[in-house]
Amino acid sequence: MRTQVAIVGAGPAGLLLGHLLRAEGLEAVVVERASADYVLGRIRAGVLERTTTDLMDRLGLGERMHREALPHAGFHLADGERLIRIDIAALTGRQVMVYGQTELTRDLMDAAPGRGLEIIYEAGDVALHDVESDAPYLTYSKDGREHRIEAEFICGCDGFHGPSRQAIPARVATAYEKIYPFGWLGILADVPPCDHELIYANHERGFALASMRSEKRSRYYIQVPLEERVEDWPDDRLWDELAVRFGPEAGARIVRGPALEKSIAPLRSFVFEPMRHGRLMLAGDSAHIVPPTGAKGLNLAASDVFYLSDALIGWFGRCDADAIAGYSTRALARIWKAERFSWQLTRLMHRFPDNDAFDRRMQLADLDYIASSVAAQTTIAENYVGLPL
Amino acid sequence: MRTQVAIVGAGPAGLLLGHLLRAEGLEAVVVERASADYVLGRIRAGVLERTTTDLMDRLGLGERMHREALPHAGFHLADGERLIRIDIAALTGRQVMVYGQTELTRDLMDAAPGRGLEIIYEAGDVALHDVESDAPYLTYSKDGREHRIEAEFICGCDGFHGPSRQAIPARVATAYEKIYPFGWLGILADVPPCDHELIYANHERGFALASMRSEKRSRYYIQVPLEERVEDWPDDRLWDELAVRFGPEAGARIVRGPALEKSIAPLRSFVFEPMRHGRLMLAGDSAHIVPPTGAKGLNLAASDVFYLSDALIGWFGRCDADAIAGYSTRALARIWKAERFSWQLTRLMHRFPDNDAFDRRMQLADLDYIASSVAAQTTIAENYVGLPL
Repeated sequence: MRTQVAIVGAGPAGLLLGHLLRAEGLEAVVVERASADYVLGRIRAGVLERTTTDLMDRLGLGERMHREALPHAGFHLADGERLIRIDIAALTGRQVMVYGQTELTRDLMDAAPGRGLEIIYEAGDVALHDVESDAPYLTYSKDGREHRIEAEFICGCDGFHGPSRQAIPARVATAYEKIYPFGWLGILADVPPCDHELIYANHERGFALASMRSEKRSRYYIQVPLEERVEDWPDDRLWDELAVRFGPEAGARIVRGPALEKSIAPLRSFVFEPMRHGRLMLAGDSAHIVPPTGAKGLNLAASDVFYLSDALIGWFGRCDADAIAGYSTRALARIWKAERFSWQLTRLMHRFPDNDAFDRRMQLADLDYIASSVAAQTTIAENYVGLPL
Repeated sequence: MRTQVAIVGAGPAGLLLGHLLRAEGLEAVVVERASADYVLGRIRAGVLERTTTDLMDRLGLGERMHREALPHAGFHLADGERLIRIDIAALTGRQVMVYGQTELTRDLMDAAPGRGLEIIYEAGDVALHDVESDAPYLTYSKDGREHRIEAEFICGCDGFHGPSRQAIPARVATAYEKIYPFGWLGILADVPPCDHELIYANHERGFALASMRSEKRSRYYIQVPLEERVEDWPDDRLWDELAVRFGPEAGARIVRGPALEKSIAPLRSFVFEPMRHGRLMLAGDSAHIVPPTGAKGLNLAASDVFYLSDALIGWFGRCDADAIAGYSTRALARIWKAERFSWQLTRLMHRFPDNDAFDRRMQLADLDYIASSVAAQTTIAENYVGLPL
């Protein structure tokens, strides 16, 4: 098969990119290792920046999102005693949308056939070839046969563990990484949220997050040591711990229910430079990871895809080679700022095993300062709604 | 001798306090271990917040300061490539004043006789007694004799190494401390500054600060490992290093000259709680230390003294015991915020031995974000000019 752009990965990055290219009349094929159901079964982020929702609107695919998503005008930081509201709407003039990554992915998948975006699911052993040449190609196995897709460009939207990043030789690349000494234990349950906005809590016993997918589905997290196991956390123990960490007021409003899903995820900051090598471009988690504090992961994938689609449209429409050459630098400028915000909010809100009493007081002083300063609240709000493209 | 308030230490904190009490007609005596010349010979901070200059004006002692000090409407952060100007006047409506601590101290010393503020210099072996009782007293030796000052309150303005803090028993106190893994090598020289404003530089090779005492006297610092010795830094080597760390533009403007003074100072964050025990109150460096980044040390001493004089005036004027009881909490709320700012600016601008490549990129991303965000610049500016009392 021949196409103009072969996309590896049918997560939100790959699907958004495919749709943006199709909207300009370009050929694009998406190759996905898993099945559509498997992709939709992954529980992921749920807070969308305007940058991300704007892309859905530009594609004319935002209808269900606007109907079902919950617009949020603010969120809270808690320091064990009080809630500090960050009024993002008043401070920035923008809101965020709570809409599960699963829902966004479903909207993009459902629209693919009508827009002529081919998605090949259950493609095994995806491999990238000749990305340094003008004629790169992908191979994969499906239904017992080997397949090949020749393309002008290959876009790696296949996440942290996908093959695309591996196709960039180590000699031209630098990887920056920070592994955090704790994980997030998450629970999803069909109960109303304890608050209509998100609460990020820095409690003496560790971080906790009260989030949601809808008015009937709650998502909670607590910071746990990395060696903890899900089996050690029966639902009751987890609900008890959440009630403590959100403090008497918000904790008392928690509605308990059986876990639909419960899992522990590690936290990582990771950036891979450059994001282009020859005819291969990376976007989203294949090139960078943020800790989930601040909900930047999906939104960063969306801004990558914005820059990347722009570069490819420039290439195919105006033979603009500079657009391709500039993609990595352009995307990374925004990525490093989002990495900074996610890292800083993670450090502000978590207990670190090597923190001493002074460090703890610095966290509390930081929260106290934020509570008292409009400028400090604005720095958080403007990053939370997403820095300009 | 009997007095109402015995003050230990004739640095700016003790002298300011003495003058503020005298201005209300209260009796105060200052006891100082060193000679007046020795106190004036100490090279210290030189950037005054409005809070500090307001106190001088309130005392009617700001005349020379307003004539000789340099008002600064901004300063710069440098990241090795560019200068990021923090326009404190535009962002906060305030300025800071560059006026050496030595000059401020001299003004306060010179005015003491006329205001009836007695200062006893060269008082040896100062000791505090019965601070938990209603009749505390000080003893010291001078001219071969033991002296005693009975007072209603003792105020410890005797710095980090003075005896006052030691008079508060460990069982009622908590000390928070952070020692930084580097020092500042400073040079004072009679040469014009390289810029009319301060430059804080985070260079690949470490931090550097371009400061000044006047239009003809420059003060420069570089970050050095703690084990470094002044003898390893002949003037030429230091000037060469400064030229590198400020980058091609500002570095080229450095005017060299022989060192009037050259020394290495360690950096420390330290807070002692509570700041009152019985009839003893601490103010300034005796209770807390900040790293010099951001120039908060002297200004924090001034705000302590503002709160402390207020409490003592309340006690003697209105028999207000709550004012005395509330002093520590009131002072500490502002201190922790200044500690936070000094710690954060220190972390932003220095190379830490245990920082990895990711941490370094976070520093650069932080500077890049500051360069692009008015809100981020405002958080720095509002702390730099001093948070509200």
